[in-house]
Amino acid sequence: MGMDHRSLRRRVFDLLERDVPGDRLADVIHFGLIAVVVVSVVIAVLGTVPSLGLRDGIAFGAIEHACLAVFVVEYLMRLWVAPEHPLRRGMPAWKASVAYAFTPFAVIDLLAIVPLAGSLFGSYELHGLLVLRLMRFLKLARYSSGFNALFLAIRRERYALFSCLLILASGVLTAATLMYLVERDMQPDQFGSIPAAMWWAITTLTTVGYGDVVPVTALGRVIGGITMVSGLVMLALPIAIIATSFSQVIAQHNFVVTLSMVSRLAPFTDLDPKALGALMPVLHSRSFDRGHLVVRKGEKTGHLYVVLEGYVEVEHPDGVERLGPGGVFGVAPGAGMEHLTVRAASKAKVLVIEENELHTLMARHPVVVARLSGMVFPKTGA
Amino acid sequence: MGMDHRSLRRRVFDLLERDVPGDRLADVIHFGLIAVVVVSVVIAVLGTVPSLGLRDGIAFGAIEHACLAVFVVEYLMRLWVAPEHPLRRGMPAWKASVAYAFTPFAVIDLLAIVPLAGSLFGSYELHGLLVLRLMRFLKLARYSSGFNALFLAIRRERYALFSCLLILASGVLTAATLMYLVERDMQPDQFGSIPAAMWWAITTLTTVGYGDVVPVTALGRVIGGITMVSGLVMLALPIAIIATSFSQVIAQHNFVVTLSMVSRLAPFTDLDPKALGALMPVLHSRSFDRGHLVVRKGEKTGHLYVVLEGYVEVEHPDGVERLGPGGVFGVAPGAGMEHLTVRAASKAKVLVIEENELHTLMARHPVVVARLSGMVFPKTGA
Amino acid sequence: MGMDHRSLRRRVFDLLERDVPGDRLADVIHFGLIAVVVVSVVIAVLGTVPSLGLRDGIAFGAIEHACLAVFVVEYLMRLWVAPEHPLRRGMPAWKASVAYAFTPFAVIDLLAIVPLAGSLFGSYELHGLLVLRLMRFLKLARYSSGFNALFLAIRRERYALFSCLLILASGVLTAATLMYLVERDMQPDQFGSIPAAMWWAITTLTTVGYGDVVPVTALGRVIGGITMVSGLVMLALPIAIIATSFSQVIAQHNFVVTLSMVSRLAPFTDLDPKALGALMPVLHSRSFDRGHLVVRKGEKTGHLYVVLEGYVEVEHPDGVERLGPGGVFGVAPGAGMEHLTVRAASKAKVLVIEENELHTLMARHPVVVARLSGMVFPKTGA
Amino acid sequence: MGMDHRSLRRRVFDLLERDVPGDRLADVIHFGLIAVVVVSVVIAVLGTVPSLGLRDGIAFGAIEHACLAVFVVEYLMRLWVAPEHPLRRGMPAWKASVAYAFTPFAVIDLLAIVPLAGSLFGSYELHGLLVLRLMRFLKLARYSSGFNALFLAIRRERYALFSCLLILASGVLTAATLMYLVERDMQPDQFGSIPAAMWWAITTLTTVGYGDVVPVTALGRVIGGITMVSGLVMLALPIAIIATSFSQVIAQHNFVVTLSMVSRLAPFTDLDPKALGALMPVLHSRSFDRGHLVVRKGEKTGHLYVVLEGYVEVEHPDGVERLGPGGVFGVAPGAGMEHLTVRAASKAKVLVIEENELHTLMARHPVVVARLSGMVFPKTGA
Repeated sequence: MGMDHRSLRRRVFDLLERDVPGDRLADVIHFGLIAVVVVSVVIAVLGTVPSLGLRDGIAFGAIEHACLAVFVVEYLMRLWVAPEHPLRRGMPAWKASVAYAFTPFAVIDLLAIVPLAGSLFGSYELHGLLVLRLMRFLKLARYSSGFNALFLAIRRERYALFSCLLILASGVLTAATLMYLVERDMQPDQFGSIPAAMWWAITTLTTVGYGDVVPVTALGRVIGGITMVSGLVMLALPIAIIATSFSQVIAQHNFVVTLSMVSRLAPFTDLDPKALGALMPVLHSRSFDRGHLVVRKGEKTGHLYVVLEGYVEVEHPDGVERLGPGGVFGVAPGAGMEHLTVRAASKAKVLVIEENELHTLMARHPVVVARLSGMVFPKTGA
Repeated sequence: MGMDHRSLRRRVFDLLERDVPGDRLADVIHFGLIAVVVVSVVIAVLGTVPSLGLRDGIAFGAIEHACLAVFVVEYLMRLWVAPEHPLRRGMPAWKASVAYAFTPFAVIDLLAIVPLAGSLFGSYELHGLLVLRLMRFLKLARYSSGFNALFLAIRRERYALFSCLLILASGVLTAATLMYLVERDMQPDQFGSIPAAMWWAITTLTTVGYGDVVPVTALGRVIGGITMVSGLVMLALPIAIIATSFSQVIAQHNFVVTLSMVSRLAPFTDLDPKALGALMPVLHSRSFDRGHLVVRKGEKTGHLYVVLEGYVEVEHPDGVERLGPGGVFGVAPGAGMEHLTVRAASKAKVLVIEENELHTLMARHPVVVARLSGMVFPKTGA
Repeated sequence: MGMDHRSLRRRVFDLLERDVPGDRLADVIHFGLIAVVVVSVVIAVLGTVPSLGLRDGIAFGAIEHACLAVFVVEYLMRLWVAPEHPLRRGMPAWKASVAYAFTPFAVIDLLAIVPLAGSLFGSYELHGLLVLRLMRFLKLARYSSGFNALFLAIRRERYALFSCLLILASGVLTAATLMYLVERDMQPDQFGSIPAAMWWAITTLTTVGYGDVVPVTALGRVIGGITMVSGLVMLALPIAIIATSFSQVIAQHNFVVTLSMVSRLAPFTDLDPKALGALMPVLHSRSFDRGHLVVRKGEKTGHLYVVLEGYVEVEHPDGVERLGPGGVFGVAPGAGMEHLTVRAASKAKVLVIEENELHTLMARHPVVVARLSGMVFPKTGA
Repeated sequence: MGMDHRSLRRRVFDLLERDVPGDRLADVIHFGLIAVVVVSVVIAVLGTVPSLGLRDGIAFGAIEHACLAVFVVEYLMRLWVAPEHPLRRGMPAWKASVAYAFTPFAVIDLLAIVPLAGSLFGSYELHGLLVLRLMRFLKLARYSSGFNALFLAIRRERYALFSCLLILASGVLTAATLMYLVERDMQPDQFGSIPAAMWWAITTLTTVGYGDVVPVTALGRVIGGITMVSGLVMLALPIAIIATSFSQVIAQHNFVVTLSMVSRLAPFTDLDPKALGALMPVLHSRSFDRGHLVVRKGEKTGHLYVVLEGYVEVEHPDGVERLGPGGVFGVAPGAGMEHLTVRAASKAKVLVIEENELHTLMARHPVVVARLSGMVFPKTGA
């Protein structure tokens, strides 16, 4: 144990998080785990097809058990390395593991191995377990920035989307009631109650249009036509909202930044977990190709920038300065940086703290801002 | 009566309007009324399902009557407190109540309790009453900014949307006529008349596609294919219009401002109802997080701002000024405010009157603008 | 004849064109003609429903003949007043009428009265004539700015939309071929040939999804799923193109400008038809509410503006000037107008010639630009 | 052979590439080849309709063989002229032909003539060959800028679109699993396995809605309704992404630029293939009408412009300069060109190298940038 154990734990943590660029073994583990998830889900899906008769095959059980074994090992590993996470620095190891066990990803991982119990102590046939097996697909969310962006986009516009739902509900209710009154006697099976008519209404308003329930009277068809046209408007609302929100989220975060990446940078190495947690949501990520402008001369901006990967060149009146990972540029909050041009000197990833959020951060965590301001290049007068 | 009655009426008005922030009792009443509406609508919907047999149950009648009682009390209360509404200040009480009774929300509330008469004097089975019972859902519109935004978005673009409808009508008519000529003899039941063919056409152009009526001849299918592709264009038009309009409306009003909120602010407390009515539509609402910029230095803007909630700090060449609810900033119309930075000092809600609309307002209600200009911070020269 | 005939013809032209604002009689004729078109189309549609038996009714024939009479009178009137049109100024009367008879709207009007011949010389039952009767709906296009905007939007993006069609065609062809190979033997009736499979493919790619033809094999369903997802992308392309184009067209032309409106303005009264024709497409239309800014101080613009209706106030360093219909402002081409603020003094409609198009116009019709530059306010130095 | 052969090869290359503007014969060949592709595909499609019996007709075989002959000749011609392509300058002829044979378009062309072998050595009935015959449609991609734009738009956003696919897959999997659990016993044929339920799920989420498989239980319909509403969100994601990307790609490249066009311009005539290859992707294309502004005075831009067709006029403080095809304007990288106005003197096509990409290019191919900088107008100080 001791130092050996600590450095091994650190190494395993880095392998699982895969945020040291260029670590080949981490890449292999990363894509290996994704493959195991995909195989496990495909097996679970195909296992429900009676004609394939997969459930009785030996290979089927073997693959299922092998996947389970991988997931169990992965889960235990992640519990073990939890204290290495920057957010849990300084906690006792057992406390860090418990804290980790209650994070959403850890819960998903746990659910992914619960069917193990089912297969050991009882029958495979429990269909409730099937859902849990398929939930393994959610393990992929950990590796995808798209899920994250969709989640953020929906959360940002949750009030507007809720309004859309309310409007949709009113539309469904109104269309269903009218159709119930009109077609009730003609088609008692299809429109004999309002809930039955609501099935038709939702099908029509979302333009899915199964055709299992359709109006047959002239008046019913007129109401149907009006419902369809209203459906186009209903369709337009969430498309407008989600589209705008999603593209803004993607514009702000064009790659995923993880806590452990940030905690490796010079300005943040010994920051306490609370300050780090406050910092994460205000860090926007941008990547630049070699030669592209990070800051154009004359741009009025009070943002603060931290280089994450690669190099940038700051062209200022007195010369050119080259900054690498951990380099901070911008200005002390309040002043501008109109006289600078900043250009990527290689393929570079840069973290941006926007002026607005810099102020919010300063009010809550003055230490973080003070540290960044002290490291900023170029120094502002006095 | 007298003073006691007046202050009680005021208190009830504030509870029902729920625009004094932080009033817990008002919150309880607010969500309680929403719950009663939802319960009442769910009961009405489920009551139409014959297999559930809810209509004969005692509980069903009891809940229905309880909901009705709540709505009646709410309606009478709202009539009673109507004179407290800023728009009806100075009216005699009975006149204010009558004026209120003709507002759209009051009409909806009245329709929500009409089925009461049906249950007292006759049979529950009248299906016409059902629609009225379900109309209660519209009572929720009072509480939702989304309905409001959709309504504004549609009204703003009503001419463009009407054009879309005309284009859609031409498309339906053309597709139906062609299909009638082609498929009339093959499928006399489905395409035997143009109105019948129009059902197919609207179903296809909106991409609902029930499939209850489909062309079977080769030529009919070619016409069908062209109709579908035209449908994509038809689909694009309202999506483009509504999407743009809806997102602009949401951007301009990111929270709901009510008359009684505005009438509580210092600059507007003793404004007459007519001036208040003129003011409301030009007030745009914006909310800001602590530290975020309300006005960026160098912005060329002639807008006028009134703080509704929270605090802002105006940074001007001579120092920093803190403004609370009712505080006005900007400049006397015509000049700019390029030298100011305004920042939210706490979570703040701010009302904005845009430069364009300030001029319109000045032409019609010079008193309002004169008052605002007199209170504006910082004072402009002379 | 002589002067009397000329002024009567002018009066009828103004009534039919309805572009003198506030002419009540013109409004009555305008909406009367629209009503006749709608009635005529509704009659033609309902006439095809056998169960209504309208065709045998006396009223049916009477209304049909009355509508026809109105259309014939309208057509002859329009032919007669054709020489009053600014584009045909100076032509002999018969030549102007012939020229008018070949415009698209005149052709539509002629087609609308062709069924007259059918009813006089033969049977009503000719179904080919039905399409012509329904084509009367297109007469409404004359009165709608939406049709016009859609037409312009589609024409602007005709190359991009053609590419979309090509992409859609490739998608249909590929999906149909694959499905034909896979499902040919299972469902020879539905997928027995590629044209048959193409019906399924177009139905699926446009997300209409009738369901009359669906794959039943596992492989067929996988191909079907891929086709559907590709359909989402196909859907996105025209929506993106039309949406952008339509909203830009509406932004540039927010009301319809007709030649006769323009030819009434002081700068254009004695312009020859050719120059007028060159001018029309470069006139963008904007309407402003009272008090709203037409030109904001500091805007760098070389546009030229002509007031069409209402009044604007030009605020320049030496004072304020009020301009009414026919007033021209902006600057001689090449200079800027940074020192002006222009504000609508009433509800105003303004025509804009953009800087880019002013140069094009100057190259082709220097006379028009010279005239406008001579009238421009304020005068630029020397 | 010798000079004669070389100049003939050059002439054939120019005819096939059709990038010398105004070459009538090239236009005829261009549209002729398109017509042959269309005829060949239509024949292949119609040949699968048994009722038409085309396969046995003599004309059918004759047309098919004629098309094949054209494609073979075209393919051989393209192989022969391959050394004329600027990218293969200086290669031995055979090497250039081999290099060409492995380009995507050459592979498509080869696949288009493979059925020849089938018809010579065996039966026409091989259905695998059918797909290859229809792949000829892809030959049209060579002539369409739309295919190219869609391809670029999809490639630019491949990560975001992949995320959409993952989200869609999660949605399909979740909906299918829930529906399988709920409807398995009621409809064992439709929902008897998860893959079967996935067919319903993908049909519903993409709003295609065939209606061949629909839920019948109350709970199933509730899940179905939630799936449909989620489908609207799924629909919104790719529409938002593709729409934005596609319109940006079209904005950047509003006409197709080919290598041979570029290699004809003075600055690029003797550039080696590698430098040319590096240049192509950074050339954005813009077309301007006569009189329109290419660069507006005061625009802060460090872009470099090369005239491709037509003429532009550069208005600088010392006068006006006219530049024709091959003319370069802008500034030496790093400085601005705020004092210039550039205007199209005729319908003009201009290539733009954006400032960002100019730097990237300078780092990799300093020779190209040095040459351009040397030709730039106006000369920057010393």
